[in-house]
Amino acid sequence: MPAFRHTLRVRYQECDPQGVVYFARYPEYADIALTEMFRAAFGSYDAMVGDGTDLVVAEMTVRYRAPARFDELVDVDLEVARLGETSLHCTAHIARGGQVLAEAGFRHVFIDVATKAKRPMPAAIRAGLERFGPG
Amino acid sequence: MPAFRHTLRVRYQECDPQGVVYFARYPEYADIALTEMFRAAFGSYDAMVGDGTDLVVAEMTVRYRAPARFDELVDVDLEVARLGETSLHCTAHIARGGQVLAEAGFRHVFIDVATKAKRPMPAAIRAGLERFGPG
Amino acid sequence: MPAFRHTLRVRYQECDPQGVVYFARYPEYADIALTEMFRAAFGSYDAMVGDGTDLVVAEMTVRYRAPARFDELVDVDLEVARLGETSLHCTAHIARGGQVLAEAGFRHVFIDVATKAKRPMPAAIRAGLERFGPG
Amino acid sequence: MPAFRHTLRVRYQECDPQGVVYFARYPEYADIALTEMFRAAFGSYDAMVGDGTDLVVAEMTVRYRAPARFDELVDVDLEVARLGETSLHCTAHIARGGQVLAEAGFRHVFIDVATKAKRPMPAAIRAGLERFGPG
Repeated sequence: MPAFRHTLRVRYQECDPQGVVYFARYPEYADIALTEMFRAAFGSYDAMVGDGTDLVVAEMTVRYRAPARFDELVDVDLEVARLGETSLHCTAHIARGGQVLAEAGFRHVFIDVATKAKRPMPAAIRAGLERFGPG
Repeated sequence: MPAFRHTLRVRYQECDPQGVVYFARYPEYADIALTEMFRAAFGSYDAMVGDGTDLVVAEMTVRYRAPARFDELVDVDLEVARLGETSLHCTAHIARGGQVLAEAGFRHVFIDVATKAKRPMPAAIRAGLERFGPG
Repeated sequence: MPAFRHTLRVRYQECDPQGVVYFARYPEYADIALTEMFRAAFGSYDAMVGDGTDLVVAEMTVRYRAPARFDELVDVDLEVARLGETSLHCTAHIARGGQVLAEAGFRHVFIDVATKAKRPMPAAIRAGLERFGPG
Repeated sequence: MPAFRHTLRVRYQECDPQGVVYFARYPEYADIALTEMFRAAFGSYDAMVGDGTDLVVAEMTVRYRAPARFDELVDVDLEVARLGETSLHCTAHIARGGQVLAEAGFRHVFIDVATKAKRPMPAAIRAGLERFGPG
């Protein structure tokens, strides 16, 4: 069972003239799922920002296995791979009916909203995210 | 001669599985050209925002005549149709090699950055935009 | 009660530096809802295309009333205003908790997939869409 | 001197509520520059597709160093790192005024348009791309 699953339907405007999802939409799918995982972990992303903490992507890697097409339902499975002092390491598996379409890894860094400087992950957020770590 | 012309090249990710530019990208093309017309009229959009004035779209109409395709060069011709107290009325003609692809009309409203309330168009902006009115 | 409602959640990447949904995303919201209305009316858009019929946007008008923000749930209410020989006229009301954010009208035209020429709306599609006409 | 440089201006709709370019737009910038490098190397991407060869992204890695903002000019520097039998390995450095904003690596695979199966890179394309290899 995945640590966290968000299912979404491919939109027409996410597909390109090859008739498949444009490659730069897959990181967006992972980002959408991350917002949902945050909701499940500790509440809304907006509330976190309101409390003075934000998040930026520091690194990502995506491997493409097979294309998704318009109107298909795809599952975005996220797992928290590691929680650093200021960083969040996630993996994302994007699949359709059990077939993996793309595998991705992300390193996010927590920052102070005002100064944009790195800051330690707040304790409540850490506690919430720990629930989505490796089984 | 158009009041203001900005030429851009169609990007792959702006095209959909029909192999043509997705219909909601045409208003984006007009918006990109508007930023360039602002630069020519009075300087940067960012400086205007820094001075406390921003702009929102209040209404748009687009008529689609023919499709644009990946990698084509399209001309976005803008004209200031009317300058109200708080509003800017523009027309946009999007064409390729003289063939009209889409015709659009926009009504923008000037707002105060802090309060988001309507505000009169600043005089320097009005003076700059008047140069792009009907010949 | 609206003829057809599709509810979606605003994505981070749909919002701009003003902190609100970028104006050209609203027609996309209506397009997403249209795909869902088609599913309810006669089955999948893809099956229609497989049968040799496609659809293009010929005209749209959007009036913006209030902004939507990241992570908000918005309702997209569609109604079939008129079914012409080759055209589909729809209205869309986009709202959040009953507050109208944008009102839009669309004219779509049915085309032959191979020739791209206008063609009459297939009877089964017409029958399905009639159910979403004005109360 | 970079092997190939394409300069583009950040568009408003590419920026998010943090006021900076959304992270998934950087791979798009690299993709836009790749189309331009192809033009310089062997002619148009479209002509290549017309000749029966297409290209898909198999893998990408992006490291984010600093944010770009609306209306800034950014340089996308591409270099062909390696030409395999069926694959193209590129690096992209995205910078503003000499400051690196993002570094990326891409592996593309050439495919047959009809079958979607891997195919060797056509000789003329290989010859053209070799000119953009490491100095």
